[in-house]
Amino acid sequence: MKFYDCATAPSPRRVRIFLAEKGIELPTVQVDLRGGEHLTPAFRAINPHCTVPVLELDDGTPICETGAICRYLEEIHPEPPLMGTDAKDKALVTMWDRYMEHDGIFAVRDAFRNSTPGMKGRALTGADGIEQIPALAERGRALAQRFLDDLDARLAESEFIAGPRYTIADITGLVAVDFAGWIKLPIRDDQPHLGRWHRAVSVRPSAKA
Amino acid sequence: MKFYDCATAPSPRRVRIFLAEKGIELPTVQVDLRGGEHLTPAFRAINPHCTVPVLELDDGTPICETGAICRYLEEIHPEPPLMGTDAKDKALVTMWDRYMEHDGIFAVRDAFRNSTPGMKGRALTGADGIEQIPALAERGRALAQRFLDDLDARLAESEFIAGPRYTIADITGLVAVDFAGWIKLPIRDDQPHLGRWHRAVSVRPSAKA
Repeated sequence: MKFYDCATAPSPRRVRIFLAEKGIELPTVQVDLRGGEHLTPAFRAINPHCTVPVLELDDGTPICETGAICRYLEEIHPEPPLMGTDAKDKALVTMWDRYMEHDGIFAVRDAFRNSTPGMKGRALTGADGIEQIPALAERGRALAQRFLDDLDARLAESEFIAGPRYTIADITGLVAVDFAGWIKLPIRDDQPHLGRWHRAVSVRPSAKA
Repeated sequence: MKFYDCATAPSPRRVRIFLAEKGIELPTVQVDLRGGEHLTPAFRAINPHCTVPVLELDDGTPICETGAICRYLEEIHPEPPLMGTDAKDKALVTMWDRYMEHDGIFAVRDAFRNSTPGMKGRALTGADGIEQIPALAERGRALAQRFLDDLDARLAESEFIAGPRYTIADITGLVAVDFAGWIKLPIRDDQPHLGRWHRAVSVRPSAKA
């Protein structure tokens, strides 16, 4: 297998943390997103969507999209389980992971990509030139703030995001919360549960990934 | 189990088709989205995100979000498999299902909800009042058109969306393509592969769900 990564980008960090929690090391290729390497014919041949992360299997099949890569890794390397144990737990982990992505990462992405000068014409990942929409940046920022408040409330009642155990939802949540720092939405003092959880997941060795 | 549905909405249709393909029948409650029933305290107690579909388990646990519900159903009722068979197949189905949702359903949703007069203040699902952004409607429409073209190209090389077998990616794809009809983007004559596939999946009894 070969892992196409970009060390500075949030989405591939989700896979890096997942790999670290599983204790898997993979040959890794850094893709220079800032330099536009993802738009070259060579990279398009690997992933026509022009995004990282990509996991290339030994038979050459490219698995694109974070969730698909993590599903593959969970199947071939089940321990420790990061995507749930029984049917109910798997469903709850899926639900919470989705909230972290949709309410968290997508909101911050909208805020960041639609307002940052360097992201002009790149308001979405991928090959298309997508123009910024200032109103979408504003909406994303409001939703990201709401996400952090909601997550604080969730973590008042649960040790980890999807329940009593660390799962992929905590990985996606950590990446979302750290990504919110990019738009200057730090964890506030009146979000103590979020702060407690963030310290706990950030001291795991995987968080450095 | 109890299934909270809305017969006219695209997202719960994904679960209805999934259930029909599995041959599962469930006690079903219709939630009147048009009348705002999802915003009532009674429904908020079931799903604070105020969305359908929801699958309520026998112990009262609500499983929200289509992907989480389908994961649960696949676990308790594995036949026929709709989310892949081996590790590689599961990863590819996850990847294609995600493309159908992100490139398809989300694009059409943005176009529809940000332009339809009846959707004023409801540009996203859920409890928040979210104002329409006309530029986002335009962007969604362009991306939805691109999605249909890309899907036609994919179906030129594959019988079903994720490979040789019908999977959840075909369910999400069908719902996305039919949803595109709401914004008057029908399948065109120059998209013959998309047309061939759409006829094939639409004559399955599950498509009536």
